Amino acid sequence: MIDSHLFSHITIIGLGLIGSSLARAIKSKNMAGRISVYDNDEEVRAICRDLKIADIVHDSISEAVSGADLVILAVPIRAYSSVAKKISKHLSSDVIITDVGSVKKEVIVSLRAELPATINLVPGHPVAGTEHSGPEAGFSELFIDRWVILTPENNTNTNAINLVKKMWNKLGSNVEIMDASHHDRVLAITSHLPHLIAYTIVATAADMEGQLQAENKNTDVVTTADVVKYSAGGFRDFTRIAGSNPLMWRDVFLSNKDAVLEMLGRFNEDLTALQKAIRWSDGEQLEKWFTRTRDIRRGVIEAGQAGRFEYTESKKKDND
Amino acid sequence: MIDSHLFSHITIIGLGLIGSSLARAIKSKNMAGRISVYDNDEEVRAICRDLKIADIVHDSISEAVSGADLVILAVPIRAYSSVAKKISKHLSSDVIITDVGSVKKEVIVSLRAELPATINLVPGHPVAGTEHSGPEAGFSELFIDRWVILTPENNTNTNAINLVKKMWNKLGSNVEIMDASHHDRVLAITSHLPHLIAYTIVATAADMEGQLQAENKNTDVVTTADVVKYSAGGFRDFTRIAGSNPLMWRDVFLSNKDAVLEMLGRFNEDLTALQKAIRWSDGEQLEKWFTRTRDIRRGVIEAGQAGRFEYTESKKKDND
Repeated sequence: MIDSHLFSHITIIGLGLIGSSLARAIKSKNMAGRISVYDNDEEVRAICRDLKIADIVHDSISEAVSGADLVILAVPIRAYSSVAKKISKHLSSDVIITDVGSVKKEVIVSLRAELPATINLVPGHPVAGTEHSGPEAGFSELFIDRWVILTPENNTNTNAINLVKKMWNKLGSNVEIMDASHHDRVLAITSHLPHLIAYTIVATAADMEGQLQAENKNTDVVTTADVVKYSAGGFRDFTRIAGSNPLMWRDVFLSNKDAVLEMLGRFNEDLTALQKAIRWSDGEQLEKWFTRTRDIRRGVIEAGQAGRFEYTESKKKDND
Repeated sequence: MIDSHLFSHITIIGLGLIGSSLARAIKSKNMAGRISVYDNDEEVRAICRDLKIADIVHDSISEAVSGADLVILAVPIRAYSSVAKKISKHLSSDVIITDVGSVKKEVIVSLRAELPATINLVPGHPVAGTEHSGPEAGFSELFIDRWVILTPENNTNTNAINLVKKMWNKLGSNVEIMDASHHDRVLAITSHLPHLIAYTIVATAADMEGQLQAENKNTDVVTTADVVKYSAGGFRDFTRIAGSNPLMWRDVFLSNKDAVLEMLGRFNEDLTALQKAIRWSDGEQLEKWFTRTRDIRRGVIEAGQAGRFEYTESKKKDND
């Protein structure tokens, strides 16, 4: 290993938004002697060759992981098991395996079932992303100022944890270590439920025209064109979230079912309470409710998690 | 009236985000011989004097509207009735009254009850805004490339409608004319329901820590600090919407109750269907659902309604 590199050979499996961003970021920080990548989609591999995001884009997953001292899985969660099966016999004995999946408990179970018992596994989750998918959507700054959560098991080698932590720090991320089950509950409310709600409301709006026609409410039909045209009133923010990768999100909900259903239950209680306040014209209750939620927004801004894309808009106003 | 001005004297009542942005925009386009403004909050008036957003900041609402040929109401909807009562006797006979309220049917009813029957009323709604409130948050470009919906009654003077339309066009907005009731149903799904959902989920997340303690679930508590820290996974977008002006939104839900409850009913059906698909691990159904919602997002982007603040982020990536 050359001293200046954190790893001598990093392999990334899966070259979507996150995997391709990682390849770019690792390359730009010169963090590995060699970067190998693989994706099971031939077209994606061709794009990544054109984009030159790695030293080698392999056509074989087993060749891709051979000799690597760090393997990063960046595939949809339900593919972990089959990927682990394919690479298991080709891994170096001292390799560290990490991943970027949005659910952690199930990931550990499915990887542990397929990988050699002695393998160093450091599950990880960068809380970062955009609405775009695929290798062209990736960019090397995606992880700057974002949190990365690592969920190692109790007996994981400390050196392995520290190396993965160091990698993320070098990419500009802050790293937190927690239990996999705590991760899954926190993300259920901060990420999975918001996506579920956004997917729902976008579908409700998309179906409106057809629904109203089916109900024979042919006067005053709210059309899909209306919905798109006047989306700036709030709806557009939901469409951004609901534009995220369908396969990735299908797997998140299937893999974190219990926590998502728990949070959805709590949300439904609150929604019913708010619905009742509207039906009863309880202005005082509504005002109290809407004032409280502002404090949370302030917290998000102060924590620096409000998103870079908003900064420009505020700045623009300051200069106005 | 000087030929180059669209109106000789424009008065704006209410100097929050929208009212103060309008004053700035009208001034920057030199659209009125004189701009008078009024707000019932003394502190807001002082700020607006400092900001020099108008020719005169009046301390009296009746003086503010005297001699105006256009009066724009930019106050919370439930204040319309008392404002109309106060200005009714001080209006010029040929004045045009317009507004910027997010609900239109109730606005017409409450204004018509208080204003002289012969007054030219052209209700309007710019579908534009930010999460910020108050006169400091306003900026003159707020209405550029945004839709403004006018909902005149059947017998409204065409000339009055055209003048208001021209004003918005000059501010960079596209104008659409529709029935007040159609407006209220379209906005219920594109704006009011998204806000309601955002207010709900932010409260659910904010209450989590206290709820779990009340349930004596003292292990694995999801804290408010966790929620804020990891908000970049989707939750932060909801906090932005839920940071909007509480008084304005209280009035929107009270004034558009029927349409909001209708859309909420449709949303709840869809949420229950999605909840069931998760409980039954119906991956096929989830994938189908999440793929459909992407098309709507594409429509929003193609319609140019995705928001200026996103542009920078995409551009950044292109240069990557």
